[in-house]
Amino acid sequence: MTVRIGVIGTGMIGQDHIRRLTHVVTGTRVTAVFDIDSARAEEVAASVGARALPSGAEVIGAADVDAVVVTSWGPTHAEHVLGAIAAGKPVFCEKPLATTAEDCLRIIEAETAHGTRLVQVGFMRRYDSGYREMRKVIESGGIGEPLMVHCAHRNATAPASYTSAMAAQDTAVHEIDVLRWLLDDEIRSVQVLRPRPTRKRHEHLQDPQIMLMETAEGVRIDLEVFVNCQYGYDIQCETVGEEGLVRLPDPAAVAVRGRGRDSTAVLQDWKGRFENAFDTEFREWAGSVASGTEPTGPSAWDGYAATVITDALVESMESGATVGIEALEKRPAFYGGAER
Amino acid sequence: MTVRIGVIGTGMIGQDHIRRLTHVVTGTRVTAVFDIDSARAEEVAASVGARALPSGAEVIGAADVDAVVVTSWGPTHAEHVLGAIAAGKPVFCEKPLATTAEDCLRIIEAETAHGTRLVQVGFMRRYDSGYREMRKVIESGGIGEPLMVHCAHRNATAPASYTSAMAAQDTAVHEIDVLRWLLDDEIRSVQVLRPRPTRKRHEHLQDPQIMLMETAEGVRIDLEVFVNCQYGYDIQCETVGEEGLVRLPDPAAVAVRGRGRDSTAVLQDWKGRFENAFDTEFREWAGSVASGTEPTGPSAWDGYAATVITDALVESMESGATVGIEALEKRPAFYGGAER
Amino acid sequence: MTVRIGVIGTGMIGQDHIRRLTHVVTGTRVTAVFDIDSARAEEVAASVGARALPSGAEVIGAADVDAVVVTSWGPTHAEHVLGAIAAGKPVFCEKPLATTAEDCLRIIEAETAHGTRLVQVGFMRRYDSGYREMRKVIESGGIGEPLMVHCAHRNATAPASYTSAMAAQDTAVHEIDVLRWLLDDEIRSVQVLRPRPTRKRHEHLQDPQIMLMETAEGVRIDLEVFVNCQYGYDIQCETVGEEGLVRLPDPAAVAVRGRGRDSTAVLQDWKGRFENAFDTEFREWAGSVASGTEPTGPSAWDGYAATVITDALVESMESGATVGIEALEKRPAFYGGAER
Amino acid sequence: MTVRIGVIGTGMIGQDHIRRLTHVVTGTRVTAVFDIDSARAEEVAASVGARALPSGAEVIGAADVDAVVVTSWGPTHAEHVLGAIAAGKPVFCEKPLATTAEDCLRIIEAETAHGTRLVQVGFMRRYDSGYREMRKVIESGGIGEPLMVHCAHRNATAPASYTSAMAAQDTAVHEIDVLRWLLDDEIRSVQVLRPRPTRKRHEHLQDPQIMLMETAEGVRIDLEVFVNCQYGYDIQCETVGEEGLVRLPDPAAVAVRGRGRDSTAVLQDWKGRFENAFDTEFREWAGSVASGTEPTGPSAWDGYAATVITDALVESMESGATVGIEALEKRPAFYGGAER
Repeated sequence: MTVRIGVIGTGMIGQDHIRRLTHVVTGTRVTAVFDIDSARAEEVAASVGARALPSGAEVIGAADVDAVVVTSWGPTHAEHVLGAIAAGKPVFCEKPLATTAEDCLRIIEAETAHGTRLVQVGFMRRYDSGYREMRKVIESGGIGEPLMVHCAHRNATAPASYTSAMAAQDTAVHEIDVLRWLLDDEIRSVQVLRPRPTRKRHEHLQDPQIMLMETAEGVRIDLEVFVNCQYGYDIQCETVGEEGLVRLPDPAAVAVRGRGRDSTAVLQDWKGRFENAFDTEFREWAGSVASGTEPTGPSAWDGYAATVITDALVESMESGATVGIEALEKRPAFYGGAER
Repeated sequence: MTVRIGVIGTGMIGQDHIRRLTHVVTGTRVTAVFDIDSARAEEVAASVGARALPSGAEVIGAADVDAVVVTSWGPTHAEHVLGAIAAGKPVFCEKPLATTAEDCLRIIEAETAHGTRLVQVGFMRRYDSGYREMRKVIESGGIGEPLMVHCAHRNATAPASYTSAMAAQDTAVHEIDVLRWLLDDEIRSVQVLRPRPTRKRHEHLQDPQIMLMETAEGVRIDLEVFVNCQYGYDIQCETVGEEGLVRLPDPAAVAVRGRGRDSTAVLQDWKGRFENAFDTEFREWAGSVASGTEPTGPSAWDGYAATVITDALVESMESGATVGIEALEKRPAFYGGAER
Repeated sequence: MTVRIGVIGTGMIGQDHIRRLTHVVTGTRVTAVFDIDSARAEEVAASVGARALPSGAEVIGAADVDAVVVTSWGPTHAEHVLGAIAAGKPVFCEKPLATTAEDCLRIIEAETAHGTRLVQVGFMRRYDSGYREMRKVIESGGIGEPLMVHCAHRNATAPASYTSAMAAQDTAVHEIDVLRWLLDDEIRSVQVLRPRPTRKRHEHLQDPQIMLMETAEGVRIDLEVFVNCQYGYDIQCETVGEEGLVRLPDPAAVAVRGRGRDSTAVLQDWKGRFENAFDTEFREWAGSVASGTEPTGPSAWDGYAATVITDALVESMESGATVGIEALEKRPAFYGGAER
Repeated sequence: MTVRIGVIGTGMIGQDHIRRLTHVVTGTRVTAVFDIDSARAEEVAASVGARALPSGAEVIGAADVDAVVVTSWGPTHAEHVLGAIAAGKPVFCEKPLATTAEDCLRIIEAETAHGTRLVQVGFMRRYDSGYREMRKVIESGGIGEPLMVHCAHRNATAPASYTSAMAAQDTAVHEIDVLRWLLDDEIRSVQVLRPRPTRKRHEHLQDPQIMLMETAEGVRIDLEVFVNCQYGYDIQCETVGEEGLVRLPDPAAVAVRGRGRDSTAVLQDWKGRFENAFDTEFREWAGSVASGTEPTGPSAWDGYAATVITDALVESMESGATVGIEALEKRPAFYGGAER
């Protein structure tokens, strides 16, 4: 009855998911792990009663592993996901699905050949109660057909290692996935604007950036990505439709009236904002594994789309031009293309 | 066409009303003033092209005075209001109408004998857009029958001259008037609770106080009066009815997100909060004078009620007991008693 | 490593806790249950792989039961809690700890004789993130010393079986516990006001009620209990201190701007409001059992206090008089009395 | 002492300003009017005790006219403004200053030749308390250097006569002026995006439009113009700086909690939103006339800039291309160019 999970990659995010699968989600147990740093793998394994194995392939192949979680270095994702598909085991892969569109397509081919969905990609915003409520409002016709979406993704500060391309790849990628899902629509072109940069950034970085996207249905999205806003972690999303608009709420927080101001605290990092979404994500995924049904979360196609769109954003950020996205025009029937 | 106004009392509030009648309200002009400090009266008069006269009686009697504004020391209000009634001239009297219930009754008798309303008392909250909107919601049945009202009246600090009785007489008196009008109901009993006092007060003062009131219809009101709250000027009012509630808004203010908090400024004094209400109050009163119709603002009966109720609050604050208010059970027909 | 739990009482709340201990909280398992309705007990037991036993005593005594959860009919609570203490097993008892103050005192005596805390009472508000954040603000001196608390507890509707006494016993009891904890203070007297009743109630019911409480430190609390407010489930709490105030947030919800209004949905029942608090409550309690440490949640003394205070509220609601509470003046050292 | 004003154009907006100058602003009087519809002019004149004259030129030249207000048909504005400058009289011109950039330049030349400012253009947002407060926050360094501005301008519905170009000329023009003033910066290029159009529009209209602007300092502005949003009149503005952001407040409105929702009314037209701004605009302008000082409101240069920028927006809306604005690179010293 307990789902036995093998985890490939025991870095920070891997450890967090292991903790979640052990102490937060019921009905799951981590039985085997692998990390390129074998000492770290041993230590993490010991802490939860799992075995450290000498390779990702062995984790995938282990008899006491029912499903695989891939949280290793991005460039190794494709290999492990393909391995899991080959073994016919469900695999949860942290974003990105693969670092190149080509590798994503190889995964899509493999999964399609397998015949049922095995892959879920770790875009957790779809599990946030605010976005879910917003989607319900839109689906129920509460605002008419969507026409525009205004978004902002702000972090207090970014480290020196954060590059201009990461604004699309690591930051905007969350909005890309959740907006495609929210609107049930596909991105068709993108354009990146470069506002006056903040002096609070590391000099190599273009920060902030404004990412404009247009969907197949003509919805216009503007997304401010600002990773050195200083004041905190702040996620905004407003969908404007033909008859009204719906806004993501700010997290609930006590209001203090004092020293001449009425104020609430702004969260300082994503943990406070999306911790519940991560938990729900793993609960629902583990539930699908336990019941032997296909996962309902972000698919390999969604992972491919995210990679294609972030590539286009990076290209536009560098060139300044609008970049069209033809690769996503035909979604395979296997990934719900027929429904559209 | 211009309404010529005589002002009795040229202290701070008198000067503010003279400024208002000269520079804010159109169609009015101050022609005569009196103050016990004749030098001050001369100076104020000169600044607006009016005459300073040697007594309130002469202001009231002056041929170029169509209507009188009384903003002198409280204990002199009754004399001037009675004088204006005797002269058959409209009179706007700042709160209180009179400092004793007996004097209020003498004014009521005189005005009733005169046969039409001449007196308006300066309770300006009825002219605030928030309270007016709240009243419309209640009258339209938007919350069902009112059952409870929760209020707070907070000032940043109170001077040493502010006494415990003034919490009722000078502060709560505004809520008393506006709640009677908001609910179209009468106060029948009061009780004052004495919370742990703040150490930020002058020692002689009971601050905060919680004033409980019950209306003839059984509506229960709780009013926090806290005049040393430190953080600003803050007026709250929430009416709870059988099917919903309606809340007074906080004043509109830009929100700043910075230094880890999302915040708006709290006003520091009543001017920013009720300046518009004062202007509307005088515009509507001057309009009634210009058109020769009876004033529609707070009446002598409302002034009497305020005095009777604040007397009861002071008595309860000192004794701790619930104090019934029989004096207001029968409102004269002249003051709308028949309608009730 | 897994905490094995016996549950006495498999009614609605019992089943919900069994679900929680099985599917939400990790590290716990329900091994034995009892219910006066043995068929129901069998069915519930079967659904989670537990045994149904013929009595509460046998559940308490079972070798595979490490800790006991009591969710049976209120009048039976004392018996089972005393049984668990006698067996030296940790026991989580849903409110009330006992239906009489005398029974609460018997539990206190038994637990004190045992020498370490075994009892936790199910007041879950202390585990709500809003109240916890509010407490941090108060403890950190963010508003100075507390002087007043304004609260409201509103339900959309109450069934015919809900009595006027239940407004204190079942509804206000949550505020009583959380306010004692929030203020780290004790209630010393209470008074219940009876506003004009809503016509939307069952006729036998006094609804709404306003409950006034005074603490040992002189803090004044006003609590509106309104169980037929029609519009939803609404919990409000504002603590006013010497230098500012802090307000409980409303639950986060998407805002919709449409049809001429900007609006958010109000929750319709307590599940959406306190589900997370229940989960946290059991996680922390199970954690204390697993680690063999004393529970940190509401104690038997807190359960006793709640019963004494609700008794006083019911007395005041019936008599109209202020009711003093002497019984809580001396908190035993065993329950932290020395610290105060 | 009273400022005597001649009004050219007695249509809807002209009548509203005549009402304002007669009944709201003190110290002003309308003495002469002209309208191409002489019957309407006569009627309006009679209502305020003014004369109707046979031409705008005669209004400008009248001995009892100290200052001129131009509210006639847009294409006639330039003629009347130039006439007033020639007569050396202060002139308040409703937007647009002129319908072509060339005519604006002629006005600038004439005014510069005159040597002191005589012209004020009717952009009233600078007089709105929210924008003024926002400007203070920015000027005081409260958010660091501005980097981005996110705006929306929404109307419930637009009539059939409203064209796609009017989205820039009549609607966005208000944001154009207030943002130039707010940022103390100049627009350098614009680009209009065309989202999927709402089906609630008249078919010839592009609605909504997203207008992107870049300033000389590199600030990026995105402005949603949506004139058939159905739900009401809604003005949003958020300025994001290096250390924080500041947001325009929504108008204060009572909140109603009922029927399962917590809600406030959205205004239905601009009157409720900017009535106070119009009053303040005329009070300050009349004050400058009365004191014989230069007006401090929007200048002829601001009027020129608005025309140049709206022209560029219309061009971009039609072509889809980014349109640069070179004409505003050198602001004459007469209009504060030296300061920059």
